[in-house]
Amino acid sequence: MASEIFSTVEFQMVLLLFIALAGYILATRVNQSAVVGEILVGLIIGPSVLGWITYTDIVQTLAGIGAIILLFVIGFEFEFKDLLNAKYVVIGAVGIVIPWIGGYATALAFGFDMASAIFVGTALTATSIAITANVLKEMGVLDTEVAKAIIGTAVIDDILSLMVLAVTADVATGSVSIFSVGVVLVTEIVFIVAAAAIGLFVLAPLLERVDHTHIAQLYPEFVFISAVMIAFLYATVAEILGISGIIGAFIAGVSLKSVGLEHSRSIRDSAEALYIIFASIFFISLGILADIHALTGPILIFLLVLTVVAVITKLVGCGLPARLLGMNTRDSLILGFGMSPRGEVAMIVALLGLSLALIGQDIFVAIVMMSLLTTIITPIIYRNCFFRGTCGKDDVKPGTPPDWE
Amino acid sequence: MASEIFSTVEFQMVLLLFIALAGYILATRVNQSAVVGEILVGLIIGPSVLGWITYTDIVQTLAGIGAIILLFVIGFEFEFKDLLNAKYVVIGAVGIVIPWIGGYATALAFGFDMASAIFVGTALTATSIAITANVLKEMGVLDTEVAKAIIGTAVIDDILSLMVLAVTADVATGSVSIFSVGVVLVTEIVFIVAAAAIGLFVLAPLLERVDHTHIAQLYPEFVFISAVMIAFLYATVAEILGISGIIGAFIAGVSLKSVGLEHSRSIRDSAEALYIIFASIFFISLGILADIHALTGPILIFLLVLTVVAVITKLVGCGLPARLLGMNTRDSLILGFGMSPRGEVAMIVALLGLSLALIGQDIFVAIVMMSLLTTIITPIIYRNCFFRGTCGKDDVKPGTPPDWE
Repeated sequence: MASEIFSTVEFQMVLLLFIALAGYILATRVNQSAVVGEILVGLIIGPSVLGWITYTDIVQTLAGIGAIILLFVIGFEFEFKDLLNAKYVVIGAVGIVIPWIGGYATALAFGFDMASAIFVGTALTATSIAITANVLKEMGVLDTEVAKAIIGTAVIDDILSLMVLAVTADVATGSVSIFSVGVVLVTEIVFIVAAAAIGLFVLAPLLERVDHTHIAQLYPEFVFISAVMIAFLYATVAEILGISGIIGAFIAGVSLKSVGLEHSRSIRDSAEALYIIFASIFFISLGILADIHALTGPILIFLLVLTVVAVITKLVGCGLPARLLGMNTRDSLILGFGMSPRGEVAMIVALLGLSLALIGQDIFVAIVMMSLLTTIITPIIYRNCFFRGTCGKDDVKPGTPPDWE
Repeated sequence: MASEIFSTVEFQMVLLLFIALAGYILATRVNQSAVVGEILVGLIIGPSVLGWITYTDIVQTLAGIGAIILLFVIGFEFEFKDLLNAKYVVIGAVGIVIPWIGGYATALAFGFDMASAIFVGTALTATSIAITANVLKEMGVLDTEVAKAIIGTAVIDDILSLMVLAVTADVATGSVSIFSVGVVLVTEIVFIVAAAAIGLFVLAPLLERVDHTHIAQLYPEFVFISAVMIAFLYATVAEILGISGIIGAFIAGVSLKSVGLEHSRSIRDSAEALYIIFASIFFISLGILADIHALTGPILIFLLVLTVVAVITKLVGCGLPARLLGMNTRDSLILGFGMSPRGEVAMIVALLGLSLALIGQDIFVAIVMMSLLTTIITPIIYRNCFFRGTCGKDDVKPGTPPDWE
């Protein structure tokens, strides 16, 4: 009986939510973000230290839901017009290329094969919108000009890096041809444009119309269920096209952001409740997946070098173009450091590489730990160098959509 | 690629949520409750007709979460003092015994073995609190005296029938001894009393205290995660003691109902968002599990007889004691019919029997369909016999907690 209990979904949920709570408590003790706490406690409870929980099918299912809901909810923070500022596109693009080259070169220098190097490069491209926005929120400086630039650039950066990810998966798995890369890029752009257009001009108005029908008045939850279905549908279509499912979920979120409801439950508020439980499980699953036993001597050095490269390449890749485009030095540095946290996107890249068996546990753990370290470094630098005295007045969980108003 | 996509959690979520939406739409078309619609569409999309979705591990995991969240949220509608009215205890107890005997005798009369007959009897004992409360809400008569009696009795009835379920599982699986039945009953009563006491006097005040700490002010979601963890923890402990996990979740809900929060997200409102998605998946999973191919000639007749027995035994088992205890004839009939919907509890009984291989697909499907039919019959009788003219003025999804004020 006892051993059967441990494999039930009920018990696994208890463990996962316990880890989440312990992660929050740890985060407040060490003055860090909850995501960092959750991953660290996941590391401790997982195979790395205690081995109380492993990456079971149940954990995988729940974490999969968490990744979709996470990006769906993050999508609610943005508007498509944020993506259309030419400066942000330039900064975002350079801020993708430099870290990619840095990661790729570092991996090759440490003797890894090309497929691994491509994944390491890709993992270094992505800024975590969630974490960056939240660091700014924690500092209480979300309404500054530089914060807007960071958010705008982070969106571009995120989408570009997810594009790079799709190409990476293709390139790393086999047929490397300019033609196939071109096909992927065109597919992605068409998908993003079409999904955004359908979302904004068909689905969002449709949900608003449904909100005024008999069914929404009878069932205030109908529109919310529809919205969640759209998120998973977009994710599925993206995956069918060979794109990461979370891009689809993100676009669904941005598309449905503006839906105005009268009779129905708020999509945003209800989705946030799902997010609280399942995004936590997603973060925890990353800690469970990263078995630090893989972090022996040489890979530990690789991790440290990679982390330094990760920060410097974003500082140069984003800060320099920003400076050249007219931003002052201080703001350019703030922007550069602000783009450093790699967060969940790098981890998703690592997870994809691991699940495709294109990278080993060693590189996987190095990427996860690098992501964790870059996420920790930015708030420390902000607190001590740029926003001394303003810190901590408005702390919320990193990854929590910072701005519900 | 294509076939891999169909087994992803993303695609399964799309299908499940699509079924949920179709269920709502069907429900409004045929003027029925959403639960009925969801189960019916689940039947159609599942192996019974189209075979687009089967009872995969993913569906099982999500439905398992749904059952826990369902009873947790339903628990929020009740207070322990509802359970302490002696009249309700008498009506509830008689309303358990008569249907159990009716179901047991009917199954034996149709030639099924004793283990099956015990499960059929047990399946007939349980009134669905969720569905009953919601039928009353749909009728707009929740504030009448008879409605209060129905709810109070339904709670007793539900707890007693879940006790019967625990005993049933023990009896049906093997060692039938008065001693072991006694042990189960004592374990159950001790668990319920202890869980309720710990919940009310330790955990609820603890959550209120946490709400005033630094951590809840930093992370408004902390208390909500704690509450959901408590629900799953109670479910796990119940299961370890050999009691159905949903009893644990229900007691967790009742215990935490009164938690007053200042800084944190509402537990109730956030849990409802989980409920909307996952309870729907739970209901759908019942439709997917019931393969109506098993409903051939004799079992179809069994189903019809069982449904009539189900309604009549509740009418007699609850209505008669109510009449004898001083309720007028009309209200006694209303109460009797009000206790008829078997809803999800009968289905959980059936599921347990099926998963223990103690009942076959034929009886499983008969119980699920009986549950469906009794759920449909009550609103029809109410609408046409008792509350003509008051109906439908306040329709909400059955199973939706009817009274959030």
